[in-house]
Amino acid sequence: MDAYAYLNGEFLPLAETRLQVTDLAFLRGYGIFDFLRVVKGHPIFVDDHLDRFEQAAKVMGLQMPESRECLQQLIAELIQLNPHELLGLKMILTGGYSADGFTPAEQPNLLAWASPFSFPDAALGVSLMSYEYHREIPGVKTLSYLPPIQMLPQLKRQATDDYLYYWNGLISESSRSNVFIVKNQTVSTAATGILPGITRKHVLSVCQGIFAVEERAIQLAEVFAADEVFITSSNQRIMPVRQIDQHVLPQPYPGPVTRKLQALFLEREGMQRVAVNR
Amino acid sequence: MDAYAYLNGEFLPLAETRLQVTDLAFLRGYGIFDFLRVVKGHPIFVDDHLDRFEQAAKVMGLQMPESRECLQQLIAELIQLNPHELLGLKMILTGGYSADGFTPAEQPNLLAWASPFSFPDAALGVSLMSYEYHREIPGVKTLSYLPPIQMLPQLKRQATDDYLYYWNGLISESSRSNVFIVKNQTVSTAATGILPGITRKHVLSVCQGIFAVEERAIQLAEVFAADEVFITSSNQRIMPVRQIDQHVLPQPYPGPVTRKLQALFLEREGMQRVAVNR
Repeated sequence: MDAYAYLNGEFLPLAETRLQVTDLAFLRGYGIFDFLRVVKGHPIFVDDHLDRFEQAAKVMGLQMPESRECLQQLIAELIQLNPHELLGLKMILTGGYSADGFTPAEQPNLLAWASPFSFPDAALGVSLMSYEYHREIPGVKTLSYLPPIQMLPQLKRQATDDYLYYWNGLISESSRSNVFIVKNQTVSTAATGILPGITRKHVLSVCQGIFAVEERAIQLAEVFAADEVFITSSNQRIMPVRQIDQHVLPQPYPGPVTRKLQALFLEREGMQRVAVNR
Repeated sequence: MDAYAYLNGEFLPLAETRLQVTDLAFLRGYGIFDFLRVVKGHPIFVDDHLDRFEQAAKVMGLQMPESRECLQQLIAELIQLNPHELLGLKMILTGGYSADGFTPAEQPNLLAWASPFSFPDAALGVSLMSYEYHREIPGVKTLSYLPPIQMLPQLKRQATDDYLYYWNGLISESSRSNVFIVKNQTVSTAATGILPGITRKHVLSVCQGIFAVEERAIQLAEVFAADEVFITSSNQRIMPVRQIDQHVLPQPYPGPVTRKLQALFLEREGMQRVAVNR
């Protein structure tokens, strides 16, 4: 892989991008990240991602070392250094090289890299396993993924693709995506205890005037009674859910509402590319 | 700092010990560690620490790349490379360089390093802030410390040293130590939802035949009514607690039971050093 990376002001090959082991992301999992797609050289919803990245730094008490303009510039340079049709671009801000192994350093480490990327086949859909869990700081894209990774062997044994997190009977999200249900042409998604997904935001937006939308508390039982279920993320866009635990969702996949939203979302994404290009 | 480190079979200066950013500890906080003290060249309770480290690897589905004998050997070499009166020795096992950024690699990364260390002054004691929280996988020394690090500014504003975690009205542990209370000459500590501390284990052991001991569920309210409270960890041994939130514990610090246990524990540690030396 010929991926190029950015580390604290320098551009270098990803394989040579190394951090000392006293970095707090490594010692204590302390840091944040964001991930965006780049289609034919255009970063998709880049301002949304940078808004979220900067906000996450504030919430976690990390000083963002570069201005918005510098972040935009480094993204542009990484895109130039990695000439591929479709890129995934990851940015990470860590607690830096900690003097005592616990307290964040004055100077965080800022990294980013882009690597060739392909979408999973949305026609296949995904299966989910319900899992009683909530992330510790759900509103922030932190580096903390212990339980879902620890549980991967069980997921694999059950030939399941991902999790459906629930807590106190209410669903929240999947391990790296938001969850939507469709019932009687109404599109609903959890309001709280979730990462504010960029794809989620734009799906809610394109629903306006076409489908009724509810951001609210959703019972786990409602998911099993839904007409359609889909998950959204920057690396999957809108992915239909085929099955949750033993429950098979009504066919076809994607269902009619999901299909309509996929089309509207692609249009939105294309408009956004044009806007960036202007 | 002239600390030396071990990384996957090689010994090198700590500052040159770097991992690629695709390591799963860095990307997703996925890994385990352990920490032991080395006094005048003797690693303290080394078998207890290696038992726990190997057990943690199993629980997290990580393949320990070296045998017990190799781990003992690398500890011995690190001690030779770092000739100091008192060392802290940290071992870390990570999810390795992940191909997809989420799934642990076949080959974890194993690191260890030793650095000069000093005990905090037990005569000063510490203050704790009660904090409603439990670690996600409490029985394992994982790399996951988001909430306690995020809250450090609040801890500092309140001029407090550490947390007292509680959940559903029951206490568990502090951020990096176990918690004991003493009431009417009975020594009690939480039974579940905690890291099985090595110092905790030996404190419970030296109590035998001298003080009544209870490993049980402990209400937060009991801590405020205790005669003495102390925390235990490999880098603090037995540290008296002076204050929890606004509540000042009865003087003196350390109290008589804590003081007796400190003496018994030092004796135990010394015996253990002799045993290693034999």
